Amino acid sequence: MKTRPLFTEQLNAAWSSQDSMLCVGLDPDPKQFPASLKGKGGAILAFCREIVDATADLVCAFKPQIAYFASQGAEDQLEQLIDHIHRQHPQVPVILDSKRGDIGSTAQQYAIEAFERYQADAVTVNPYMGFDSIEPYLKYTDKGVIVLCRTSNPGGSDLQFLEINEAHSAERELLYQRVARLAASKWNKTGQLGLVVGATFPEEIAQVRNIVGDMPLLIPGIGAQGGDIPATVKAGTVTGKPGTGMIINSSRAILYASKESNFADAARKAAIATRDALRAAK
Amino acid sequence: MKTRPLFTEQLNAAWSSQDSMLCVGLDPDPKQFPASLKGKGGAILAFCREIVDATADLVCAFKPQIAYFASQGAEDQLEQLIDHIHRQHPQVPVILDSKRGDIGSTAQQYAIEAFERYQADAVTVNPYMGFDSIEPYLKYTDKGVIVLCRTSNPGGSDLQFLEINEAHSAERELLYQRVARLAASKWNKTGQLGLVVGATFPEEIAQVRNIVGDMPLLIPGIGAQGGDIPATVKAGTVTGKPGTGMIINSSRAILYASKESNFADAARKAAIATRDALRAAK
Repeated sequence: MKTRPLFTEQLNAAWSSQDSMLCVGLDPDPKQFPASLKGKGGAILAFCREIVDATADLVCAFKPQIAYFASQGAEDQLEQLIDHIHRQHPQVPVILDSKRGDIGSTAQQYAIEAFERYQADAVTVNPYMGFDSIEPYLKYTDKGVIVLCRTSNPGGSDLQFLEINEAHSAERELLYQRVARLAASKWNKTGQLGLVVGATFPEEIAQVRNIVGDMPLLIPGIGAQGGDIPATVKAGTVTGKPGTGMIINSSRAILYASKESNFADAARKAAIATRDALRAAK
Repeated sequence: MKTRPLFTEQLNAAWSSQDSMLCVGLDPDPKQFPASLKGKGGAILAFCREIVDATADLVCAFKPQIAYFASQGAEDQLEQLIDHIHRQHPQVPVILDSKRGDIGSTAQQYAIEAFERYQADAVTVNPYMGFDSIEPYLKYTDKGVIVLCRTSNPGGSDLQFLEINEAHSAERELLYQRVARLAASKWNKTGQLGLVVGATFPEEIAQVRNIVGDMPLLIPGIGAQGGDIPATVKAGTVTGKPGTGMIINSSRAILYASKESNFADAARKAAIATRDALRAAK
């Protein structure tokens, strides 16, 4: 396998050459597969490969969600899927969505999992345990490390939206803003960090963009989760660089656009519509 | 496989019948295996099985750390290891240390991974994404769900030790204390929640114990991480119930007490010494 470029270079190239900020999330749920695949060995790989081949020219990234493979004991199919993407669609970076977070010695094992075993170009991580839980990933200096910041789920506010009280600061700061500030400054030793910010809160995307400059934002929550595309794109745009800075994910709305044998065609149509909506909002 | 009791009942039985608060963490690192196992197929399972069989009468739980299996592509060996523990040592609950945290639909897949695929009795989870990232695990009403609260690593304070500012409260509250309060109240719908609190901060263990009543605390950080045993046990004791309420983990100091062919005997000796030190501190 050829050495792959820096994650941020891969993204810049994909945003430019594909003119797309769409990321297709690969969350394969066998219960939603077409009848022709149901119950077949290797169905997860076959399903994802068809989706990937049908949409690779429309996206800036693919994001396999490891939980869907782990629940089915399909780690080998995930390995083969990522290998397939690298070989057939080398221009598309692969973000392994695993949201790991653990002490340094364990994080090192997770980094091996993501970058050596699965050969991902980037990985999502959880900041709750602090910098040394993220540092081992940074030893892979060309790889992207995308830190959870503000998530789009109902419980996202339970902790992330708490206000931090600090005697030496007059400014109001919320927990997710602190994470953004840390990620954009002393944590970003490789220049390859990014942040996860949910599409359901465009105002907060704008807050994060304001803190982090042109750092890539992985934005889930459009499609099935209901985020508003024009508001999201407006909020996350890097000043002077429309069409960059965002990896906007849709999973279920594309994967399961049809549950019949035409699922790959339907996925392509849904991906085109979403990419075009994102383009129109630039 | 027989149905297993409630996680808290398993713990109570183990604390009582084994008179031990020791948990052996299974973090198999092939680089540290004795020469007789190095490079052999199935070495991870063989190593862990010997450790388990040498220490099962000394512990209140085993805690396999999934990262060490995932980095080696050894998920099948983890399945077989947990099956072996359930069959040979049914009195010892198994905590799968995976610290997952994701939106509800994904958390559901991780719950399948932990409880159906691996048949764990309990799982560790990350609270950063809030309650709906934890709720899917609670559908398995007999299973333990152990929430990260205050961790023992250097970066643990980056977020967990931040002070929360709330207009309606006169009391000072830190982020980890908020997590403890949520876990002990509205999140604990099954009565099977526990918390991870590192041994390097005995004062904070005492704070958490004060908030959560008799909730089980999983306490890593003794042994290789340097936590003080008497101070830890004193801080975490449930009033009137010495010898309960804590699952005190040691991994490396036991697993690699010897790196020669006598590693299982050495692990047993180290486990006896640690169990006895924990008993003496009651």
